[in-house]
Amino acid sequence: MEPWRTAIVDARDGQIRIRGCDVTALMTERTFTDTIFLLHRSRLPSDAERALLNAILSGVADHGSGAPSCATARLAISGNRASVSAAVAAGILAVGDEHGGAGSGCMELIAAGIERARREQLSFDECASKMVSEHRAIGKRVAGLGHRVHTHDPRTPVLFELAKQHGLAGDGILFMQALASAVAAQVKPMTLNVDGALAAVLYDMGFSPTFARLIFIIGRVAGLTAEVMEELDRERPMRIRIPVTFDGEGGGTPSESE
Amino acid sequence: MEPWRTAIVDARDGQIRIRGCDVTALMTERTFTDTIFLLHRSRLPSDAERALLNAILSGVADHGSGAPSCATARLAISGNRASVSAAVAAGILAVGDEHGGAGSGCMELIAAGIERARREQLSFDECASKMVSEHRAIGKRVAGLGHRVHTHDPRTPVLFELAKQHGLAGDGILFMQALASAVAAQVKPMTLNVDGALAAVLYDMGFSPTFARLIFIIGRVAGLTAEVMEELDRERPMRIRIPVTFDGEGGGTPSESE
Amino acid sequence: MEPWRTAIVDARDGQIRIRGCDVTALMTERTFTDTIFLLHRSRLPSDAERALLNAILSGVADHGSGAPSCATARLAISGNRASVSAAVAAGILAVGDEHGGAGSGCMELIAAGIERARREQLSFDECASKMVSEHRAIGKRVAGLGHRVHTHDPRTPVLFELAKQHGLAGDGILFMQALASAVAAQVKPMTLNVDGALAAVLYDMGFSPTFARLIFIIGRVAGLTAEVMEELDRERPMRIRIPVTFDGEGGGTPSESE
Amino acid sequence: MEPWRTAIVDARDGQIRIRGCDVTALMTERTFTDTIFLLHRSRLPSDAERALLNAILSGVADHGSGAPSCATARLAISGNRASVSAAVAAGILAVGDEHGGAGSGCMELIAAGIERARREQLSFDECASKMVSEHRAIGKRVAGLGHRVHTHDPRTPVLFELAKQHGLAGDGILFMQALASAVAAQVKPMTLNVDGALAAVLYDMGFSPTFARLIFIIGRVAGLTAEVMEELDRERPMRIRIPVTFDGEGGGTPSESE
Repeated sequence: MEPWRTAIVDARDGQIRIRGCDVTALMTERTFTDTIFLLHRSRLPSDAERALLNAILSGVADHGSGAPSCATARLAISGNRASVSAAVAAGILAVGDEHGGAGSGCMELIAAGIERARREQLSFDECASKMVSEHRAIGKRVAGLGHRVHTHDPRTPVLFELAKQHGLAGDGILFMQALASAVAAQVKPMTLNVDGALAAVLYDMGFSPTFARLIFIIGRVAGLTAEVMEELDRERPMRIRIPVTFDGEGGGTPSESE
Repeated sequence: MEPWRTAIVDARDGQIRIRGCDVTALMTERTFTDTIFLLHRSRLPSDAERALLNAILSGVADHGSGAPSCATARLAISGNRASVSAAVAAGILAVGDEHGGAGSGCMELIAAGIERARREQLSFDECASKMVSEHRAIGKRVAGLGHRVHTHDPRTPVLFELAKQHGLAGDGILFMQALASAVAAQVKPMTLNVDGALAAVLYDMGFSPTFARLIFIIGRVAGLTAEVMEELDRERPMRIRIPVTFDGEGGGTPSESE
Repeated sequence: MEPWRTAIVDARDGQIRIRGCDVTALMTERTFTDTIFLLHRSRLPSDAERALLNAILSGVADHGSGAPSCATARLAISGNRASVSAAVAAGILAVGDEHGGAGSGCMELIAAGIERARREQLSFDECASKMVSEHRAIGKRVAGLGHRVHTHDPRTPVLFELAKQHGLAGDGILFMQALASAVAAQVKPMTLNVDGALAAVLYDMGFSPTFARLIFIIGRVAGLTAEVMEELDRERPMRIRIPVTFDGEGGGTPSESE
Repeated sequence: MEPWRTAIVDARDGQIRIRGCDVTALMTERTFTDTIFLLHRSRLPSDAERALLNAILSGVADHGSGAPSCATARLAISGNRASVSAAVAAGILAVGDEHGGAGSGCMELIAAGIERARREQLSFDECASKMVSEHRAIGKRVAGLGHRVHTHDPRTPVLFELAKQHGLAGDGILFMQALASAVAAQVKPMTLNVDGALAAVLYDMGFSPTFARLIFIIGRVAGLTAEVMEELDRERPMRIRIPVTFDGEGGGTPSESE
């Protein structure tokens, strides 16, 4: 087999270099958030970039044991207490378009909208309004808006304010806000949620859409590890009994769960 | 890199041989259960062995949407509807010592007990009684007994009867029954569950303990695929809301789930 | 929380019914393949349907330790020998559009083509030719054709022949063959691979596209369990050393792998 | 179903509190590393604790594409390019006792050794020497020593030095060093590797053994996301061809991989 090639890490006897930086220097002089940035951007972050990345990572770290990723991890460890790796991995597998993954689609939407506004010489408000109309015509929801718990997602103003303070706020935030206004006008007010907010900020920081999903995973893994530990520490194995009703053929009265 | 070596499959242009059998012959003349047996035993099964393996696989295929493996798969697909691979994998990750995995430990217990009975010249009843006492002394439960839904696991008599009919019943079943009697005498009657039953039968068929866990996974994957399909077909994304109460510091009234 | 609802399994004390069939009857009178069919179709298969499903399941069970799913499972168990659940799950996670998952897309293509031929009153050959031209125009490959090992995938004629013998061959197979002919005429001859073949057969049997991916997973899990066992039995932990060359900034000579 | 209970996160409309801290305060005033510490210890870290946690997280973030976790993630995304969640999860599934997971066992060893030294009134050197002898008698390797790439793991002196500078170095480091000396005297010099080093430091910081595995996962996920992105950006699907030799019955010449 031909060797794989990589530009990420060079590890040889006595030395580990990440994107050209010696790991020992990262360990003593930098934060974990710097290393995350470095791994993905091949350079160290500015103070502004570090501040935003920290805010996003803490913002998505956990949202309660009932969030799909957290509940999946807890169910897994409840049946398979020997493997914390398996439980954390199971939690990550619940992350997708519907849970924690809207950011990627949202970044693509923002990029497409900004590009279109330029091309068609529209204001962001005009362009966002058109795009919302087109979504409605095909019955598609606009990514990054609405939350099943929050009427007002408390993380969004924090991210936008931080971006402004640090001089990183740009067209991404403006366009995302235009989308939220267009939905409010045409449908109903819906909170600009953390997926939409981080998509806007990451766009303004120059990240690619896939990174929106990856940073959610990195942040959420912190919470998943805590959820798994709490399940192990406080609960007995197999304690979770999901109530299930059988409504198929041959059934009748509600059945017990396994 | 040196080539990996394997004795399982030889695949080259136009030909695939599994343990020396041409895959096209398996496809036309054999059942999937034969292929499973062949993969693990390097020979085709007898009619008796096929019958038992079929019974075990159907017996563990599904036990309701609330079983930890099934519920985990459903939670995963609920948040991540784009990937059925991810959801099925998440379901498997819930399989462990506490759920679907007791069979391995049970086969080791049976093997140890039979060996000890021979060595110490004890009857199976005497040996099982000693082992149960020793478990009790260290507060350990005997694997393969008890079920959170079934007072009498309906799959156990079927497996034992089939093994008898096909001439495959041996010391494994006898010793497992001795363990169940000893627990009934010293603690309370507990159903010999499907994990205990398949462990006994697989021991008598000459399988290794790890196979008990693997066959549970093979069988359960069939059920997991159906659970995932039903969640996709009948339910909307993110419909699962686990109720959660916060009882930590700084809380007060019960919180909503994400 | 409101109870989940399901039409798959009704499990209560002493009784487990799958799609209305008592599990004990499935265990004694039916094969595992029957149970798989029952789980997905809510009825038992005919002899013809059972024969086809068996052929597909054995046909995809394993294709050598170097297949992405098998290699992924072996790498996982090599680093994490305590958890066979984790390794089998890792193997499943390598199944997607590029590996083992082309069948779903292929079934959609077949369905679209047959529908279009009817609507536009085209022969299958004419319709397939148009579709292949359209794929070429946007640089998209036609699913179900070509294989990195096989010039002629040996499983395809077996599946098509079996379908004919059992009276299950229909438009699905005809249209898939028309696609293969159109690609041969417009591009170059490419083997109709097992993904394309099972897609055609499953279409003719009335399955939904997603099932093509699910049945690949069910079949492949059998092989994954054998691959994991062989890695555990024959190899030492961490024996796999992928050769890696660092070609990023700050590198120079090739580096060793971890 | 009774509500689950948790002391980690309280999420309700407009408010998310992690261990009693408002998430918006964490986002603006704290680092991601603080949030990780908070999730697991229910309080914010001191400057010293933050520095050590940062060093550990960056130290384990990546070790080259050939590390089992990284290679597993790359194989998974190579066959299943649609799901980055699946690939990152697959990478985590390769983390276990043999890869990235030795820290937990090492912390248990350190705790047992320190406790025994006190009980039996032995110096750490005497106690470590006894324990190494006992390991050798049963053919068991001492966790935390040796590395397949590094003669001298460069991360270990960095962690120990940082711990000293910040006043966090204690018995954990001393005992781990005693173990390394005993192995050098009785067997041969082996590098005290990063698993052993982080185990010693985490012991001195008051963490539980399971956390050693969890923090490896949190750190490594950062690297896994970068490896997955690079595979997507630079390589074509299914490019990985593991060379495999068939050495079972019915074979002969080496076979190609799938």
